[in-house]
Amino acid sequence: MTEACRHFVPGPVWVRPEILDRMKGPMIGHRSKDFRDLFVELEAKLRRLFNTEQHVFVATCSGTGLMEGALLNTVPRSVLVTTVGAFSERWESIASHLGLEVDHLHQDWGQAVDQGGLADRFVGRRHHYDAVTITHNETSTGLMNPLETLARTVRDGASDTLVLVDAVSSLGSAPILFDEWGLDVCLASTQKGMGLPPGLTVFAVSERAMERARAQTYRGTYFDFVDYEKNARERQSTPFTPAIPLIYALDAQLDYILDEETLERRWSRHVEMRDLTIARCSSFARLMVDPQFASPSVSTFEPTNGMTAAEIQAFMRENGFTLGGGYGEWKDRTFRIGHMGDMSVNDLSVMLDTLAKVTG
Amino acid sequence: MTEACRHFVPGPVWVRPEILDRMKGPMIGHRSKDFRDLFVELEAKLRRLFNTEQHVFVATCSGTGLMEGALLNTVPRSVLVTTVGAFSERWESIASHLGLEVDHLHQDWGQAVDQGGLADRFVGRRHHYDAVTITHNETSTGLMNPLETLARTVRDGASDTLVLVDAVSSLGSAPILFDEWGLDVCLASTQKGMGLPPGLTVFAVSERAMERARAQTYRGTYFDFVDYEKNARERQSTPFTPAIPLIYALDAQLDYILDEETLERRWSRHVEMRDLTIARCSSFARLMVDPQFASPSVSTFEPTNGMTAAEIQAFMRENGFTLGGGYGEWKDRTFRIGHMGDMSVNDLSVMLDTLAKVTG
Repeated sequence: MTEACRHFVPGPVWVRPEILDRMKGPMIGHRSKDFRDLFVELEAKLRRLFNTEQHVFVATCSGTGLMEGALLNTVPRSVLVTTVGAFSERWESIASHLGLEVDHLHQDWGQAVDQGGLADRFVGRRHHYDAVTITHNETSTGLMNPLETLARTVRDGASDTLVLVDAVSSLGSAPILFDEWGLDVCLASTQKGMGLPPGLTVFAVSERAMERARAQTYRGTYFDFVDYEKNARERQSTPFTPAIPLIYALDAQLDYILDEETLERRWSRHVEMRDLTIARCSSFARLMVDPQFASPSVSTFEPTNGMTAAEIQAFMRENGFTLGGGYGEWKDRTFRIGHMGDMSVNDLSVMLDTLAKVTG
Repeated sequence: MTEACRHFVPGPVWVRPEILDRMKGPMIGHRSKDFRDLFVELEAKLRRLFNTEQHVFVATCSGTGLMEGALLNTVPRSVLVTTVGAFSERWESIASHLGLEVDHLHQDWGQAVDQGGLADRFVGRRHHYDAVTITHNETSTGLMNPLETLARTVRDGASDTLVLVDAVSSLGSAPILFDEWGLDVCLASTQKGMGLPPGLTVFAVSERAMERARAQTYRGTYFDFVDYEKNARERQSTPFTPAIPLIYALDAQLDYILDEETLERRWSRHVEMRDLTIARCSSFARLMVDPQFASPSVSTFEPTNGMTAAEIQAFMRENGFTLGGGYGEWKDRTFRIGHMGDMSVNDLSVMLDTLAKVTG
């Protein structure tokens, strides 16, 4: 790493200079042979990233676009939205805009989705849900839901209820085993755990979700999964012109993640960064989430040393470091430390040394 | 210009190296002060580009996304689609996917929209259209519709029919006077006349189109104009995380277009490039469109020297130049020369010298 990271925010993350350089490649057309070759390699790499043999795609949009896309393509009528913070609540807002029937399984901020409560929703089949949404890593609180368990609960509960996952701040930071866990749509924008600029969203789609999409009467155009699949299969390309510079960066960064650092070491580094952050902040701040579900990529704290969250952020800014602010209903009470992407444990440690001085 | 352009395709266009460099700026958050400052400047520049005092926005998506967005936000029921080639026909496909009532005003490929035929659609108000779509510059044929005249025809025809314009390959190449011509939505992706990488779409929206959007029951989420307007006004930002590297490039290129080259000189250069291209190709190829509507940014030819279009492209490729292939129903018969973006007349002339040798 040639340059120290000074930005400890929950995205957009610092991007390595060599990856920024890769954006400067030629502006090839997305129907050219050069692009098709790149696309085929990218698909293989994305399958390794999601641990899937099923469909993988890349779209030019933010994560929110693909959340809308997931609902458009797979939910004809009703969806159960599990909420544990601001970003999981976004599923509800998008589903309401689409005119879907929305049911809720709500937990207080800082808690994980309640597995028992989720299982209860399927007992006696009182409800029928076309899909359940799960936010893997809730960026507003710094909580990682037990996705494998929750996905299994949905599949045990109803064989025809799909599992839609927002993995925006977890993909690249924590394990996602798309096939093994039985997920149906899993999406992530690139400016978080993947260590890339914003502008692209990568997503995996199960064959049964694709079947559902084919049967939908209305899927729109820009987020039509059937069109994505058809273009990938027949033309080795995206349906529409993609953000070529960001595609180059994604391709190069996937090589780094998969073959240089490796997924296993990357996941371990994130756990190490989380544990270091929590340990070093405990004397002057309180972690806001249930510790067994503390996120490996972002930690949210409330100060206990008499300072406000804003004062702590200002102190760090004066010392050349950016921390994240609180979000939504925790905006004023908390600050957030992003420890995701390509920062090194050493970069984080240097920042935490300075942060420790707030108590002095 | 530090490097000669060798790619004469109708987009994605060659991008100047200094603009590519600008993509490497820091990955700021879209709720930060730095971004808000950038956004306010960008809005002012986009208003100059569109010649409007009304709403201007930038979205992270291809032009197709915003075509869908324009229909979602402004058409409750029925739309008249004017078609003169493949890209104008795309409006029809998107409108059909949205379940709208679609009527057509069709012209053969190579012809402009018939002004008299358009006016007839409003006589006696036999039809009521919420909007009419017009493709300013039809990239598949190399034809520029007389947008000012057509827009006036719609406004004279019905006071409540909006004018939705795809300016994908004209914005930055040819005049667009959004307010003066009475347009309602005008969109353009950045990888054509603006000389930028793909990944962003800029668009202008009239106040009456915004009123229509506010009354729509269904606008979706990712392309919701009301949300774009609210975020611009209240937060000086985009609703969702934008492609930051591409925003930097856009900002820098708008400085170049507006203040270094100037719009007037840019428009003249494109006319000069068109006239040069048509003059130099006339001995071995036939221009496919009505000459009075020949596009300033792309020209489509059918060879008359006994060679196939594919052979001409191959000859040029061997000499280090890329030409565009035919598109859609003209795919095999024609080749296209893109003369748009930041290429110089000299770059084009050097290419045309080589192309002239195909007759030899």
